[in-house]
Amino acid sequence: MPPDAIRATSPRPPLPSEPRNAASIEQWWDEFEVIVVGFGVAGGAAAIEAARAGARTLILERATRGGGATALSEGLIYFGGGTRVQKATGFEDSTENMLSHVQAAAGPTSDPEKVRLYCENSLDHFDFFCSIGVKFKDSYFAEKVIFPPTDDCLVFSGNEEVYPFSEQSPPVPRGHKPMKEGTAGGYIIEQMILTATDLGVKIQNESRVETLIRDDAGRIVGVLAIVLGKEVAIKASRGVILTTGGFIMNKQMVRHYAPDLAKCKFPLGSDGCDGSGIRMGIGVGGAAINMHEGLMTAVYYPPTSHIKGLIVNRQGQRFINEDCYHARVTDAIMQKADGVAFLIVDDSIYGKTMLPFEIAGIEDTIEALEKALDMPEGQLVHTFSSYNRFAERGEDPLLHKASKYVEPLLNPPYAALDLSAAKSVWAAFTLGGLDTRPTGEVLTVDGRIIEGLYAAGRASAGLTRSGRYYASGMSIGGSSFFGRMAGRTAAGRSTNGLTND
Amino acid sequence: MPPDAIRATSPRPPLPSEPRNAASIEQWWDEFEVIVVGFGVAGGAAAIEAARAGARTLILERATRGGGATALSEGLIYFGGGTRVQKATGFEDSTENMLSHVQAAAGPTSDPEKVRLYCENSLDHFDFFCSIGVKFKDSYFAEKVIFPPTDDCLVFSGNEEVYPFSEQSPPVPRGHKPMKEGTAGGYIIEQMILTATDLGVKIQNESRVETLIRDDAGRIVGVLAIVLGKEVAIKASRGVILTTGGFIMNKQMVRHYAPDLAKCKFPLGSDGCDGSGIRMGIGVGGAAINMHEGLMTAVYYPPTSHIKGLIVNRQGQRFINEDCYHARVTDAIMQKADGVAFLIVDDSIYGKTMLPFEIAGIEDTIEALEKALDMPEGQLVHTFSSYNRFAERGEDPLLHKASKYVEPLLNPPYAALDLSAAKSVWAAFTLGGLDTRPTGEVLTVDGRIIEGLYAAGRASAGLTRSGRYYASGMSIGGSSFFGRMAGRTAAGRSTNGLTND
Repeated sequence: MPPDAIRATSPRPPLPSEPRNAASIEQWWDEFEVIVVGFGVAGGAAAIEAARAGARTLILERATRGGGATALSEGLIYFGGGTRVQKATGFEDSTENMLSHVQAAAGPTSDPEKVRLYCENSLDHFDFFCSIGVKFKDSYFAEKVIFPPTDDCLVFSGNEEVYPFSEQSPPVPRGHKPMKEGTAGGYIIEQMILTATDLGVKIQNESRVETLIRDDAGRIVGVLAIVLGKEVAIKASRGVILTTGGFIMNKQMVRHYAPDLAKCKFPLGSDGCDGSGIRMGIGVGGAAINMHEGLMTAVYYPPTSHIKGLIVNRQGQRFINEDCYHARVTDAIMQKADGVAFLIVDDSIYGKTMLPFEIAGIEDTIEALEKALDMPEGQLVHTFSSYNRFAERGEDPLLHKASKYVEPLLNPPYAALDLSAAKSVWAAFTLGGLDTRPTGEVLTVDGRIIEGLYAAGRASAGLTRSGRYYASGMSIGGSSFFGRMAGRTAAGRSTNGLTND
Repeated sequence: MPPDAIRATSPRPPLPSEPRNAASIEQWWDEFEVIVVGFGVAGGAAAIEAARAGARTLILERATRGGGATALSEGLIYFGGGTRVQKATGFEDSTENMLSHVQAAAGPTSDPEKVRLYCENSLDHFDFFCSIGVKFKDSYFAEKVIFPPTDDCLVFSGNEEVYPFSEQSPPVPRGHKPMKEGTAGGYIIEQMILTATDLGVKIQNESRVETLIRDDAGRIVGVLAIVLGKEVAIKASRGVILTTGGFIMNKQMVRHYAPDLAKCKFPLGSDGCDGSGIRMGIGVGGAAINMHEGLMTAVYYPPTSHIKGLIVNRQGQRFINEDCYHARVTDAIMQKADGVAFLIVDDSIYGKTMLPFEIAGIEDTIEALEKALDMPEGQLVHTFSSYNRFAERGEDPLLHKASKYVEPLLNPPYAALDLSAAKSVWAAFTLGGLDTRPTGEVLTVDGRIIEGLYAAGRASAGLTRSGRYYASGMSIGGSSFFGRMAGRTAAGRSTNGLTND
């Protein structure tokens, strides 16, 4: 057995994650009460709440301007319980109803306490966004879309109307897009920059944080940052809040922790989503959980007509109701169909998707298409004949697609659009991170609190834990909500190292 | 938003994982060159190799005697490349052939270097077991079983004969059970205890290790242990090897890291499998990877005749070839069928399984069974008629079950045995742990080596990473092999803190 023959360790990311000892710091460049690392929606919310609570607050942002993954997103926020917009557009919602859906949508491994707090405080959270100047139009966008392309607000953004969720609680739309045509993530961040500046938060852009500073008692007391090219130590007398985003841009971490996500060609995130905060947290004993999970999506609607198609695996079997939220469908393709699936459409429902798809086959009969796709004899034919038979009555006894999307497919030619991970544009981001209390306090594997350290947003394991149940707006919603919690908790803490417990 | 309303942190495991500073140690109870924590097959192998390399070695075992999960297991070891037993029983194998299968069986996220070393050194590893007195009979057990109930040795213990693996490399049996009727795990450990004792290894039972000791340079230099009820500090001048097992007995960790495994009713492991080593490793900056993965199994064969049945989901669709290794089938039930599946048998193949199953339905026709199981109309009927049609020719075009298991099911009554996670005995153990080099050196998230710290066995992410591809014998095989590597590396290192690189 030749250990000498072992090749060198494969290259891994270069950033250190081990903390620096406070005793070794000769000079502090500056001192704040609260330091927030990373200016996406979580960091902005944390800083605003900390400043409103009276804390002298610094945000360190790696890029030339705040934004992060939030600024690249559509900007949907998941609110409910009877918001102004819901009421104005005639939708009746309640905290209980919202809670019932979010308990499902956050996934079976979510933190029930985070789910409860998020729902119970949703109206307050809507008001928070209003208070920083984010505007919402009192309008509803009725199409099934990824996000409203107009400046309309309310939209069904998840699985509310979809079986089995629709049987668990009355379906209500809760995706709220700020009043902005197209995507609105950047607009949210701009309002946060204005608000934080007004509150006296110091925003230091082009500042990279690689290292936490820890005192002998184990408390996090500051950060080492490369500010405009120079390494400096900055003290945080009350706490450091990590809002650095997820790790989808860190190929090594994705491969190690979330191999399914590594199969997706298109990482959804900003350059900063390289896991730096998660790694700093682990380096001081923090537990990273849910690290294999993420949201994967292959967009096949709009057009809405495509939802009337059949998604089949390589055996020609259906395995997911096609009207699910796109990420739920994509999760099913990965987990249930080993990443290989086709959307079968007939000529009357064929339409252009937002993303181009390879056409795996186009034939005048299902028999011929089955053959062209190299499927076992009689399988796709059975799937179709059985589907069409019940579709005459608007029924889908196999998978319970909503009847508005159920109609017989009878109009040749029949085409198979390739939804496979290897053949189409799958986008992905991570949903694992540091284990935190709802206050943002970072926990060790043993559930002890690491003094002085907080995390929110994708650097933490937040509100939602799986693309299988997800709704658009839950990331920005959850990240901002628990960012606020972290900002408040950090600002309200005494500086003698005692926790709030 | 009321942070005050947040309830206390839910209770988590009480063991600390943070290291103690070496400077705070007033008195060392004893000093060794290598300390091995936990005496399962990984720990035994590590200690034997360390001692053979001349290192003064201590094993600290929590229980009253070595054994761990190994002693509870069947004792199969995965060897190949042309072992004495393979040759004597007429099977031709080669390193290349073994490598080809193990590359698949270790799972797509395995470490290619570990896979390569394991296969290239398999004959040496067989000799190692012979050298410690473990005997293997030159015999082959031809039935498809979980393990040979006799003292026979060689058995197909994985997916070698199963589609698609059978198309990738010529099928050869590689499960080797030591010459012992029934299970043989305890016998392996007894031989290790004898060998280690002969080599002068000090074996300290009833010794619990909760804390690593780290010097100011970050090197692990010993452990704090509760030895026979008293806390003592023990120095390790060359290294500490964590071979403490997985974490299936730690409900909190399972819930956090591996929610699918939490759905399995029967944890496979010893009391020591509570993740203590993984937690100590994380506490000094080690990366824990693959933490959501494990092996889950619902045993439905023997009898071999059951493999001729059809496993269907709640829609009445087949989704996995029924002749796969049991854990691969169970993984498919969890991932593809949401944990709900039935094994449909007719009267001619019905037989008693090793574990009792609930019978979800028993009817004289498939139509009636479909109805009794509340499946969509026509689905199970199609599955059966299509299967039977091709089975007349011994073919299974849908999922490629091997023709020796394919025959039409025509002899009523038809019964549905419930294989669902909630309704049957699913057993599970974990396959995630500390990220290590093949030498056992523990790595940080950034891929740096933590000086003086090694891990092997289930405390590390080892040879196999997923029950979906697994073969019996890979855990004991991989744990012992990489235990040996860790023992040798630790013993051969200089004490000045330099690595082998």
